[in-house]
Amino acid sequence: LEDYILVDIGNTHFHVLDKKIYSTKEIKSFKKRVFYISVNKEKEKLLLQKNPDAINLEPFIKIDTNYQGLGVDRKCAILAIDDGVVVDAGSAVTIDVVKNGKHLGGLIMPGIYSFKKAFCEISQVLDKDFTSLKKYPQNTSEAITAGSIGAIVCMIKSLGGESRVYLTGGDAELLSKYIDGEVVKNLVFEGMKKVIFNLKF
Amino acid sequence: LEDYILVDIGNTHFHVLDKKIYSTKEIKSFKKRVFYISVNKEKEKLLLQKNPDAINLEPFIKIDTNYQGLGVDRKCAILAIDDGVVVDAGSAVTIDVVKNGKHLGGLIMPGIYSFKKAFCEISQVLDKDFTSLKKYPQNTSEAITAGSIGAIVCMIKSLGGESRVYLTGGDAELLSKYIDGEVVKNLVFEGMKKVIFNLKF
Repeated sequence: LEDYILVDIGNTHFHVLDKKIYSTKEIKSFKKRVFYISVNKEKEKLLLQKNPDAINLEPFIKIDTNYQGLGVDRKCAILAIDDGVVVDAGSAVTIDVVKNGKHLGGLIMPGIYSFKKAFCEISQVLDKDFTSLKKYPQNTSEAITAGSIGAIVCMIKSLGGESRVYLTGGDAELLSKYIDGEVVKNLVFEGMKKVIFNLKF
Repeated sequence: LEDYILVDIGNTHFHVLDKKIYSTKEIKSFKKRVFYISVNKEKEKLLLQKNPDAINLEPFIKIDTNYQGLGVDRKCAILAIDDGVVVDAGSAVTIDVVKNGKHLGGLIMPGIYSFKKAFCEISQVLDKDFTSLKKYPQNTSEAITAGSIGAIVCMIKSLGGESRVYLTGGDAELLSKYIDGEVVKNLVFEGMKKVIFNLKF
């Protein structure tokens, strides 16, 4: 079982883990056993066309939660930790709280790119780069940074209090500039591995 | 000077105040003196085509602030109060803090409609109605409500602390269901009136 490939199909990208090497790429036929999870039916079809034997891990995932309709990628990231706040910053930003292995709940915000797009669509005046976080912003850049990244930070603190923060997803590095947290690029894959190790072959 | 019309041109709508009657409508030729402010050049042209004598109040507005590039509608709303937090929930949500007549700073978030659009564009799974605010959301509706309206509430508290909250703009009523605050539909117009009363004719 050593030689396998993990695929996490997101709304926007295929995330692939092959021998600890993480990549985001279009999908091909892999030579190894493929385990995957998916939140996107169309992209899942593409994977299965090229890898008909790929195994969907979703039915094997058990989470201690009262949350209805938790995305499978969130489930895996939650599985990877016992205590703390999981922030997955991709197309959306999801924030989930885990205490003693139990998932207490979580929320969904637009992703960083989504915020930027929203600002641009509202007015070209708001088409500015993000800058540093200020409590009392004094110009448009500071104002939109506070109103997007600042709002994400606000909700992380609101949900997680003083809990440890784990940042994953494409914008994890960016968010880590604004909040104390550990960037764990492979958090979802770590959860998928836990599921695989509990499978009976 | 009693018989005049106030027009606040936003990014999306013309807001008109005529004898204390507030309306949002397409613009026409008014019989009375028109005073206006505008954050949208194109819509401003339409107003001036039909009302060539309309007076732009922007040059006459003086605000005590260090903020660079404050939108004229925000300036007017700020002028209308001496202490508190002004939340203008329109295409964007702006949150501004005023203390003893001085503007301390403010931020800009996507408007409610913008959040909804962003969620729908990320995934059709997120195309849900808003519901009540929960600290630990337990389903998708609660998760996106917390991640948008909850984030707005979080930032209002972060900026304003215990200060009085004034809600204005098209989504003021909606927000008032989620936060203690006074809905003042005509806040921007109140500021415009203050400017007019200080004009020398």
